[in-house]
Amino acid sequence: MSDPRPGEFDLIKRYFAPLAKDPGSLGLTDDAAVLTPEPGFDLVLTKDMLAAGVHFFADDPPEAIAAKALRVNLSDLAAKGARGRGYLLGLALPANWTESWLQAFCAGLAADQNAYEIVLLGGDTIRSADGLQISVTAIGEVEAGKAVRRSGAKPGDVLFVSGTIGDAAAGLKARLEPEFCSRAGISESGKDHILGRYLMPRPRTGLAGCLTRYARAAMDISDGLFADCGHMASASNCTLVVDLDQVPLSSALRGSLAAGRDEEMFECLNGGDDYEILASVSAEKADDFERDAAANGCAVTRIGRVEAGEGDLRVQRSGVDLDIRNLHGFKHF
Amino acid sequence: MSDPRPGEFDLIKRYFAPLAKDPGSLGLTDDAAVLTPEPGFDLVLTKDMLAAGVHFFADDPPEAIAAKALRVNLSDLAAKGARGRGYLLGLALPANWTESWLQAFCAGLAADQNAYEIVLLGGDTIRSADGLQISVTAIGEVEAGKAVRRSGAKPGDVLFVSGTIGDAAAGLKARLEPEFCSRAGISESGKDHILGRYLMPRPRTGLAGCLTRYARAAMDISDGLFADCGHMASASNCTLVVDLDQVPLSSALRGSLAAGRDEEMFECLNGGDDYEILASVSAEKADDFERDAAANGCAVTRIGRVEAGEGDLRVQRSGVDLDIRNLHGFKHF
Repeated sequence: MSDPRPGEFDLIKRYFAPLAKDPGSLGLTDDAAVLTPEPGFDLVLTKDMLAAGVHFFADDPPEAIAAKALRVNLSDLAAKGARGRGYLLGLALPANWTESWLQAFCAGLAADQNAYEIVLLGGDTIRSADGLQISVTAIGEVEAGKAVRRSGAKPGDVLFVSGTIGDAAAGLKARLEPEFCSRAGISESGKDHILGRYLMPRPRTGLAGCLTRYARAAMDISDGLFADCGHMASASNCTLVVDLDQVPLSSALRGSLAAGRDEEMFECLNGGDDYEILASVSAEKADDFERDAAANGCAVTRIGRVEAGEGDLRVQRSGVDLDIRNLHGFKHF
Repeated sequence: MSDPRPGEFDLIKRYFAPLAKDPGSLGLTDDAAVLTPEPGFDLVLTKDMLAAGVHFFADDPPEAIAAKALRVNLSDLAAKGARGRGYLLGLALPANWTESWLQAFCAGLAADQNAYEIVLLGGDTIRSADGLQISVTAIGEVEAGKAVRRSGAKPGDVLFVSGTIGDAAAGLKARLEPEFCSRAGISESGKDHILGRYLMPRPRTGLAGCLTRYARAAMDISDGLFADCGHMASASNCTLVVDLDQVPLSSALRGSLAAGRDEEMFECLNGGDDYEILASVSAEKADDFERDAAANGCAVTRIGRVEAGEGDLRVQRSGVDLDIRNLHGFKHF
């Protein structure tokens, strides 16, 4: 019996072409997309791959998988101060894919295209030898020369993070260990919150403009707070000093993790998948950045400072340095 | 025992950063690449995914796998008249990857970066649940408004193809069926030729400029000559008429396939993976196109014409239409 599922060209026509609303995508009927850059703007390009069993669970709702694949890329763009413009989608479908799965996946893409004002520009669909793999290349725009890099932090800067840290890693723990929430004293509503934060990142696209206006350095937190602070310290060739007591926690985590469960707290804070923004802002501009971020619907919190140094990270509690040598970030690979 | 192979950050530093020579790639130490578009140019974006066992053999030389992953994308850019500028590389490595494999793979990328004047801009490396998968997003530039589309063919145009058709599909047959070459009367040197054409596509980057100067429509031939003529006919809403006797064959295939083995001939001609260019040029410009292409080191051959119609394809031999209903192109998915 022949496969009743649509072939590649029908897939494109039925599911992907309706998402390709930019005239440059040529209705996905051509070899490539054509994009006319906005004069005076730089393009920002990022590519994240996600694999079932590594970056998401194969039985997650298809809409959520689609959203995650887009949002982790939009988070990278936002961290550079760029506004998302479009994306190319590479999809390696496992042998047992179904049309209803794909329909829901595309509904997830469509919802996020509306929410984040981006469009599908092109892509490719192939058979996967095993599980689902998704490769998204996202394209954003930022005023020429204004992209915010990791390498610009300077001694005297104030360190900020957006939102709260550790929720997604706690959500992953809750997925993997049924007893995690009761052991950690996390309520039912707290559990919903952390599960949601793992399943659906919320890229801080509202911060993009504030970053270009005020930040000297920025990046998104995907590998873990301390791992990524280390990356910024290294790229900026400074020492970053993080005050653990200032790291913002959600109400779901506050009670449990603050209660002295150090190892578990560190695992969550450094577990990755936060997709919050880490920014380094000069002391003179710190108040303005804070106000501007809040006005753009995105609270930011001071978590430390930048000092002269050679790429080191210090994590302090009550002014005392902690030993963080054994902390490892999430390994995406 | 811990894995002695390098982790993601070491991989980037050791193997990928040396390939990232564009300042916009930020040495691959940032979340995203920053690209300043050339004023007056459009960007052309394409993305092709390749999986072991589908698009290449897992035991092909790593250099050849790297070259194929890049070149199939460069072929798309060339077909639109665009000059390649850079690429993002997504790599899903199987559990048994080795450093020596990766070293050879990156040597293949480096060689093609030199040959085609492109640079690595960014990317991502993840673990694959099963076989190797590669996702390349290539970025090219073409003078604003000059990108050549599939949809511009007009009645009266002359159809051209570059190079020779069918070699790669014959090469794949030779890989899969040990007796193919002797059955088809293909010599040892002919066998080397077709195997090479399958293993290492040669994107017609030299034609990009000629296409913007002369072609009304163009695309690369990756799904099969007839399948792709059908795509151009459909996108242009014309009838394409292909004269089988004019389709250029390599000396490796000429003797064997012309000798009346119709079914095998059609399978090769329509087998895909040619990465030659199909172009539709107005009758007045046909001679100039031919000369310009030859001057750019890339012979093109007239294979037919465009007539008024509604997206149909006719394949003729000695002026008589052949029944092509049962011909199917290569299914990439």
